[in-house]
Order: sequence, then structure tokens, then C-alpha cells
Amino acid sequence: MLTGDRPTGALHIGHYFGSIKNRLKLQELGAEIWQIIADYQVITDREVAGDIVGNVRNLLLDSLAAGVDPEKATFFTHSSVPALNQLLLPFLSLVSVAELQRNPTVKDEAATAGIKAISGLMLTYPVHQAADILFCKGNVVPVGKDQLPHIEQTRVVARRFNERYGAIFPEPDALLSEVPMILGTDGTKMSKSKGNVVELRMTADETAKKIKGAKTDSERFITYDPENRPEVANLLELIGLCEGVAPATVAEEIGNGGGGELKKRLTEAINTELAPLRVRRAELAADPGYVEGVLRRGNERANEVAEATLAEVRTAMGMSYA
Amino acid sequence: MLTGDRPTGALHIGHYFGSIKNRLKLQELGAEIWQIIADYQVITDREVAGDIVGNVRNLLLDSLAAGVDPEKATFFTHSSVPALNQLLLPFLSLVSVAELQRNPTVKDEAATAGIKAISGLMLTYPVHQAADILFCKGNVVPVGKDQLPHIEQTRVVARRFNERYGAIFPEPDALLSEVPMILGTDGTKMSKSKGNVVELRMTADETAKKIKGAKTDSERFITYDPENRPEVANLLELIGLCEGVAPATVAEEIGNGGGGELKKRLTEAINTELAPLRVRRAELAADPGYVEGVLRRGNERANEVAEATLAEVRTAMGMSYA
Repeated sequence: MLTGDRPTGALHIGHYFGSIKNRLKLQELGAEIWQIIADYQVITDREVAGDIVGNVRNLLLDSLAAGVDPEKATFFTHSSVPALNQLLLPFLSLVSVAELQRNPTVKDEAATAGIKAISGLMLTYPVHQAADILFCKGNVVPVGKDQLPHIEQTRVVARRFNERYGAIFPEPDALLSEVPMILGTDGTKMSKSKGNVVELRMTADETAKKIKGAKTDSERFITYDPENRPEVANLLELIGLCEGVAPATVAEEIGNGGGGELKKRLTEAINTELAPLRVRRAELAADPGYVEGVLRRGNERANEVAEATLAEVRTAMGMSYA
Repeated sequence: MLTGDRPTGALHIGHYFGSIKNRLKLQELGAEIWQIIADYQVITDREVAGDIVGNVRNLLLDSLAAGVDPEKATFFTHSSVPALNQLLLPFLSLVSVAELQRNPTVKDEAATAGIKAISGLMLTYPVHQAADILFCKGNVVPVGKDQLPHIEQTRVVARRFNERYGAIFPEPDALLSEVPMILGTDGTKMSKSKGNVVELRMTADETAKKIKGAKTDSERFITYDPENRPEVANLLELIGLCEGVAPATVAEEIGNGGGGELKKRLTEAINTELAPLRVRRAELAADPGYVEGVLRRGNERANEVAEATLAEVRTAMGMSYA
């Protein structure tokens, strides 16, 4: 199983409920997990890479503290595995530019980021993702709906490679996970740059402060009405996710308590949910060299596997010399 | 200095006068030569890679027999140097798809090859070429006119990288070489697949036979008139290149001797020019493991240099971990 994140900042509750919890479930089921830290992909849609070393460290701390087990999951950084990246070249020969330009998710992402001149890296990143999935012969990729075109592209690459050079790669299946659509505290899409997220690493006080500033509406009585009261509904859904209760039930319980009561309950719910993670995170952060060791071992393992796959690819393509 | 060939078959006299002789001149001037064997680029414009191992061996034998000195030139195969190929990723982030699509040489090549659906590899190969040139910090690239857009693309990549992440790469200069325009024996563009070329490795008899079948025209008296008698002019130019004499002088000398005399003289000229190369080639081919050793040492050297450059790039981009 393969999954990944871009190291653009610390993880927040959107990632937590959207993917981390799902990964933990799969880990419990005994899946072998490859966890890519997609450092090169940070520069797909931005010019400034930012503090990548710091972001990678935070990403690892957040994931490990959440319970991802480094004995079961291999964490590695893209840029540290040349043999994986080399797969991009033969794979690019199997895909037409027209196909790449039709990818709806790339188009959407470019539009959302306000990018007019799509870079070569952005156009080709679904093929790079195919290399990510195929280097370790991943056969299950848990994804949200927006990632389905990329999985289809990976399947196409695997199929064409196998047809042309001999069967090496599995055609991976998407494991469509029901990702709850959680908005930021301002009612818009979560985004670190907008400051509308509760980061996993925040203190209980920082969390309280962030939620205190959350947008609600002018109606005092709390009801669960996603269509007409999206901000309030969003906060109710978050409580629901933390407590395992239906949002409508939470709304009934708060009722006349109003926005103040709603925010108080949400703060408690998140802080309770994240308390063990935060304790564990502080422990891991205090252990010198621990996180770096996890990454170093992961990169070693990823390189071994990538080199073995690349050797197979070279032989299949008749590019095995001396 | 960086130069390269695609291993699509044995070298022929077009390569010999078009690039090999030029490389030998630069070698004499003491330039450090990196000689890429661009195996991945074989599949840019065709689906079938062919006998790449055999083609690589022939390419090495031809180059070494012609006098390229493996103590001064580093031969390496693209697919054997992952750290070089990895540079494609950061470089792709520096180039827009629109820029790539404007490259006139890529457009021409696609049109010539009758390719309607340009592959991702074909679109991005100028950026891959930038990685070829920059991994060894090449500052001089001897090229024909059609390659100038690629050198310009490399300069753009180097400049943008340096501006964004710190000065690492030189902006290479093109060394525009006057490549004589030699046509095949049928008067059309030389192409191995058309069988209209004299390969360096042919025997004297095979050469004679190939030239015997060359196209001339119905006029007996030989004159040098490139515009009206292109096939005859082409053969005269080839004699001129071999003998170091002006084609018009050769024409005067043959005159009434006609096509038979023209072909006889060309056969002798080529066989004389290539005789030492062919002897040397046979010797090298008979030496077991020699060619493979040259390639193995070259690949080792290329990997060392590519890994050092990639480490610099990683540090500059803030992607140096653990």
C-alpha cells in the first residue's frame, strides 16, 4: 500500500480525519505501508520550497505520534531515491502529452492555485506518481476522489509497460476512502496559508484560541443544517468525528447554548482526541536523532527496493550493460 | 565538453564527418569529453527500442576505433546514471509546458517522424538534455544548428536554478560546428532504415557495393552543380571530404569518366579514409571485455560526478536530510 504527503507544513485535523486515521486502519489490517514524503512535489505549484527540512521533520513527528508504526511503514523522501525517479523517463515515453493535458485534477489544481503557465513538473506529476506507486509494486492506493485520474494514469502506464516490455508491474487499485469534507475555521477550504486550520502539534490553548475565532453565524440556536448554515454544520461535524456521534445529535444537545457552547464543546472534543498524540509527539521530538533515524532507515529501504525494480526494468527494456 | 549519440545502430559516414571528426579535434585541443550514449532517448520517437545492447557496443567500437580516447573521454549510458536522471525533476519545475511546446526542433522532429501524439518523453527531452549537460557542468556543447534551441533551454534552466537556489551551474555555450550536409546514396537524407548509408564498420567490398548502387543522373559528363545535379554533387562532396580536395576540382578531374569513374574514386576515397579505423575496430572487437570495460568505467565515473552534483542540488534546494 502506498500513501504520501507533500512536506508543505505541519499536519492538521483535515489530514488527521482525511487520511491518517485511514492509514492507521490499514496498518491494523496488516498492510505493508510505503509512506512517501513528496519533497519534489512541493515545487509543482509554488516557486518557493520553504523550510523543507523542518516540514519533513514535522510531518514525520505528526505521523509517528498519530500511531504510524515505523516497523510497519517505510517513510522516505522522494529526492533521496534516484532509482525511483529514474522510472519517470521510460514511463514518460508511454504517455502522450495530450493525455497529460486532459487530466482533470491537474487542470483543477492549476486553476485553484491561479497558475497560468503550468510547469513541466506539474504536467508530468501524475507520471511521477505512477513511479511512486510502481517502484514498490504497490497494488492498493487509498485515495480521495480527486486522485482517481492519477490512479487510472498509473494503471495505463503499468499496462503499456507490461505489453511492450514484459509483465513487471501490477495494475494498482484505488481504495476510495470516504474523506469527510471538513472546512477551515473560516468556513472555506482548509489551507495552512490561510491560517484556518487546527494543527495537530498545537497546544490545547492554541487550539482553544483558534476555535474561538471560528466563523459561525448570527443565529443563536444551534441546528445542523449543512445547506443553510455551512459554518455551524462544519463545526458540528468535527465534533461528530471526534466523539463518534452524529452531528445532528450534537446540535440538539447544544441547542440554545449557542455559538459559545458549540466552540467550547469542539475545543474539548479536539483536545481530548489529540491529547495522547500530543504527548507522544513531545516525547518523540525530545528524542535526539529518532526522527532522522526513521527517515534514514526508510530511505535505505526505499533505495534497495527501487534499485531492484529499476534493474528489472532495465533488463526488460534491454538496457542491461556490462 | 559534452556530446552524445542515440544507440539506434552502427555509425555511418554521416556521423563520421558530421561529428566524430569534430570530437577528435576537440580531444586534441585537450578538452575533457563526456560522451553520452542516450539509450532512453531511443524511445522518444519510436515504440521499439531494438537491440540496444548491440547498438551500444557498435557505437563504442566505432567511436573508439575512430580515435576517441577512453582515457580522455568518459562514455556512459543514460540509463545507468540515476542521479543524472533525477535532475530532470527539479529542472522540470523551472520550465513551462508552453515553453516546451514552442521548441521548434521538437516540433520538426515529431513532424519528420510522422508522430501525431507527442509523448511526455519527447516533449521533455530538451530538459533531460539540460540534465545531461549540467550534471557534469559542461560549458561547451558542440552542436548542429537544429540543437541550438536545446542549448538555449539548458541556459534558461541553469539561469533559473541559479537565481532561485544559488549559483551551481554554468550557462553552457553552443559550439556551432559546420556540419557538412551529406545525403545518402539515394540522394535523400541519410537514414539507417533506408539503407542509404555507408557504415564505418562495413568491409571495403560492402562499401563498393553500396556505392555502386548510389543514385547519379543520366548526364555522362561529371560537373559539380549542387543545384541541378544534387546526387552527383553529393558524391563529389564526399570525395572532397575524404581527400581534402574541393568537389569542383574532383569533378574536373573525372569529367568524361562519368558515373563509373566517380563511384570508383569515391569507393577508393572512403575505403582509404576508413581503412585504419576498420583495422582498429576489428582489433577492439576481438578483445574480449574491452568495450564493456570502457563502458563500465565510464558509467562509474559518470555516477560519481552525477552524485556529487545531485548532492549540491539537494543542499541548495534545502532537501538534505539526516
